[in-house]
Amino acid sequence: MSKADIVLIGAGNLATNLAKALYRNGFHILQVYSRTELSARTLAEAVQADYTTRLQELSVNASLYIVCLKDSAFVELLPEITAGKEHALWIHTAGSIPMRVWEGYVERYGVLYPLQTFSKQREVDFRNIPLFIEAAGREDTEYLKSLAAILSDKVYEANSEQRKNLHLAAVFACNFVNHLYALSAGLLEKYHLPFDVLLPLIDETARKVHELSPKCAQTGPAARYDKSIIDKHLSMLADEPEVQEIYRLLSESIHKNS
Amino acid sequence: MSKADIVLIGAGNLATNLAKALYRNGFHILQVYSRTELSARTLAEAVQADYTTRLQELSVNASLYIVCLKDSAFVELLPEITAGKEHALWIHTAGSIPMRVWEGYVERYGVLYPLQTFSKQREVDFRNIPLFIEAAGREDTEYLKSLAAILSDKVYEANSEQRKNLHLAAVFACNFVNHLYALSAGLLEKYHLPFDVLLPLIDETARKVHELSPKCAQTGPAARYDKSIIDKHLSMLADEPEVQEIYRLLSESIHKNS
Repeated sequence: MSKADIVLIGAGNLATNLAKALYRNGFHILQVYSRTELSARTLAEAVQADYTTRLQELSVNASLYIVCLKDSAFVELLPEITAGKEHALWIHTAGSIPMRVWEGYVERYGVLYPLQTFSKQREVDFRNIPLFIEAAGREDTEYLKSLAAILSDKVYEANSEQRKNLHLAAVFACNFVNHLYALSAGLLEKYHLPFDVLLPLIDETARKVHELSPKCAQTGPAARYDKSIIDKHLSMLADEPEVQEIYRLLSESIHKNS
Repeated sequence: MSKADIVLIGAGNLATNLAKALYRNGFHILQVYSRTELSARTLAEAVQADYTTRLQELSVNASLYIVCLKDSAFVELLPEITAGKEHALWIHTAGSIPMRVWEGYVERYGVLYPLQTFSKQREVDFRNIPLFIEAAGREDTEYLKSLAAILSDKVYEANSEQRKNLHLAAVFACNFVNHLYALSAGLLEKYHLPFDVLLPLIDETARKVHELSPKCAQTGPAARYDKSIIDKHLSMLADEPEVQEIYRLLSESIHKNS
């Protein structure tokens, strides 16, 4: 496959990790756009690209435009960013935006959705990230699949409906899970206990579901329906009604599903 | 230290993993008790011990008794199991039972609490498990610390109040986290998507908090307060009001803490 000249629209967590993976694999990033100059410049420097903070200055010379913007910004900016570049291939990277959002704006379009959590501070190994591909034309689907296969060993096709569900599942398995880590860190802090002591437990909890289904892996007071502990824990959370409610709701849900 | 003759009361997930770790490290397990014959026999065979299903047949010859029973069973059986063996050292392994539960029953007592999730099907590396020690006497504290140090590199002293909080934090970081894995597996199943595609995300979410605090590691629609996605997700969960409520509550909690 030909390694297209790419414009990256967005310089957030996902854009940063994706651009670096493309760059490392020999793709040429022509230009990075971000509203924030520091973000645009930092990423552009890392991948030897030009940058701009003005949409009017977007290059018209790329053959592939990758949009990694916050969903609301994306939909709002769509007419402006695509104007004059309708013949290139346009893809977005969002789980919850259907492919048809491109309809009427550009001719060739698709989606490349990496199922992963990204932070600018951490570089992740793209080879291991499931990439979900969708494109309007058969040729562009094949092109995106071969591009994705250069970055990752796990390339799948998924339509917009499936992708939407992948994203929802990912919110539970990542964002909500991380929030439970944050709540447990807060509980330990109250008693001057370091968060580090939880890391072996956190790791083992994640490792377990590589071998057992999460349902089979479940342990603890709610799975045993140990009411005396559950009540004790609820009373320990009396001064944090919101966290208490999360405890109650999740314990009930575990018990119902055990 | 002398490697005491040990009686293990209980043959569940924790008892099984603890007994095997003790056995591997040269301790002599005299006897295993479980109400369930299969559990008692299976564990006894694995650690070359005798077994019994009758509390009246508990050996009186051990110098260390380790109780790994469900909390409610423990408190109920306490008078019966300790009778005639008041001079030995007795410890339990429960996060939420205070050490003073032993008071009036035996003379020397304490707690050894491993902060980990155990399944019989998976053997875990004890060396990496934080073990929290408490004992009534200074000598027994030191003895338990040196015993624990044979099993693990991470031995801490913790009083009953701290241990109770460790347990509560562990419920969030393990049991509740695992339940979110289960809910996400259920969401994928509806669309015939395999749970496996979430594993790289689950692993990275766990790895991230080794480097960043959970609060700094947070990403996703709730952290960005992307209301259009949150509303879309809530409507996708309309046929599962309980899961929808979990989504709503956790998203609000993330937003408030961001």
